[in-house]
Amino acid sequence: MTEELIKLVKTNYNVEFKNTILLEQAFTHSSYVNEHRYLDLTDNERLEFLGDAVLELIISEYLYGTYTDLSEGKLTKMRAAIVCEDSLSKFAKECEFDKHVRLGKGEENSNGRKRPALLCDLFESFLGALYLDQGLEAVVKFVHQVIIPKIESGAFSHEMDHKTALQEILQRNGDVAITYTLVSEEGPAHEREFFVEVSVGDKVIGKGKGKSKKMAEQQAAAIAIKQLHK
Amino acid sequence: MTEELIKLVKTNYNVEFKNTILLEQAFTHSSYVNEHRYLDLTDNERLEFLGDAVLELIISEYLYGTYTDLSEGKLTKMRAAIVCEDSLSKFAKECEFDKHVRLGKGEENSNGRKRPALLCDLFESFLGALYLDQGLEAVVKFVHQVIIPKIESGAFSHEMDHKTALQEILQRNGDVAITYTLVSEEGPAHEREFFVEVSVGDKVIGKGKGKSKKMAEQQAAAIAIKQLHK
Repeated sequence: MTEELIKLVKTNYNVEFKNTILLEQAFTHSSYVNEHRYLDLTDNERLEFLGDAVLELIISEYLYGTYTDLSEGKLTKMRAAIVCEDSLSKFAKECEFDKHVRLGKGEENSNGRKRPALLCDLFESFLGALYLDQGLEAVVKFVHQVIIPKIESGAFSHEMDHKTALQEILQRNGDVAITYTLVSEEGPAHEREFFVEVSVGDKVIGKGKGKSKKMAEQQAAAIAIKQLHK
Repeated sequence: MTEELIKLVKTNYNVEFKNTILLEQAFTHSSYVNEHRYLDLTDNERLEFLGDAVLELIISEYLYGTYTDLSEGKLTKMRAAIVCEDSLSKFAKECEFDKHVRLGKGEENSNGRKRPALLCDLFESFLGALYLDQGLEAVVKFVHQVIIPKIESGAFSHEMDHKTALQEILQRNGDVAITYTLVSEEGPAHEREFFVEVSVGDKVIGKGKGKSKKMAEQQAAAIAIKQLHK
């Protein structure tokens, strides 16, 4: 499995581990270790402990720098929406990490490979291993490839309301008129794309696209926030 | 207040802020901002959000590297004992940060300067400001001056039982006889110091001192663990 895994992270994320034993350890579930005691392996739980803290810092710093007008309370809510089992397990799947984790037979038979808690731990273990192998900047780079674009495209918009955030930022110095305009729709019905512009008065401050008008609006707001802080 | 504060962190911790506005912000409580709206200040709450995550990572990495045989569950418990309101508020006081925080009158009159939650936030805000000003390594250095020596001297020994940890490590490969010997007591009754050695069989593997026999034992165990991992 290791050769394929090494290739996967190299091809998709340009990550090359110096110490591939760390990479292997990140993908070794305790159930596998228990079933192969003679191999004297180490499971990924301690790496998960470390990776969790690394991710927490990277997301905190990103949110701190991006949402410069949001309160500590709102930042904490946003962070919790991103660093949670549900979203991290999805990132593990998107990275195809689920295909490479080593499980014991019992865990495999009870569908462990699809279990969100297991996939979330796996994702954090990978980050912990990458941190030990190459330091904080390498993990920042990976997170900016995998997670940050999702935040910016509105994947967390149900928890992280960019539209409300934008409104709060703009209305700090008094009322302003913020309008969202659907400028076009493209593609066939089953994969329609919506294009939205957000304006203050008659000045366009962000453009977004998405599978629904609502998602396009959230993206437009997210992009406007980003532009405002440049 | 800023001049004194700048001098304090320079003299005691050799920390020189490039951007002293960040340092000032870390020491500005929301109650002060609310009472001085005309000054257009920013309180320390967002810095606290960031500093909390920075500290969490630094302590996680330290524990991961020091207690290489402890499980993720035990590491998490240790981390929680260190990164908590009670201990961080004490560190804030030891650093004399409580003397320099800017409070509103109401907060001052209700003894806010002694409130653990406020002091804990203050300590984390300072770490957040230091991180933004000088990066992770500078905060690591500060934490290794202020917090790590306390861990190693057994200040957290009620939550972090080094003796149990040492036993678990040594007994991984079967039973061993661990003995703690009081080798001397020094000083007058009111500031007595106890010196303890911990041995496996007849080999001394750690030495500790402390204000009580128990504290000296905990320190001896902590030092033995550290030696084992060298």
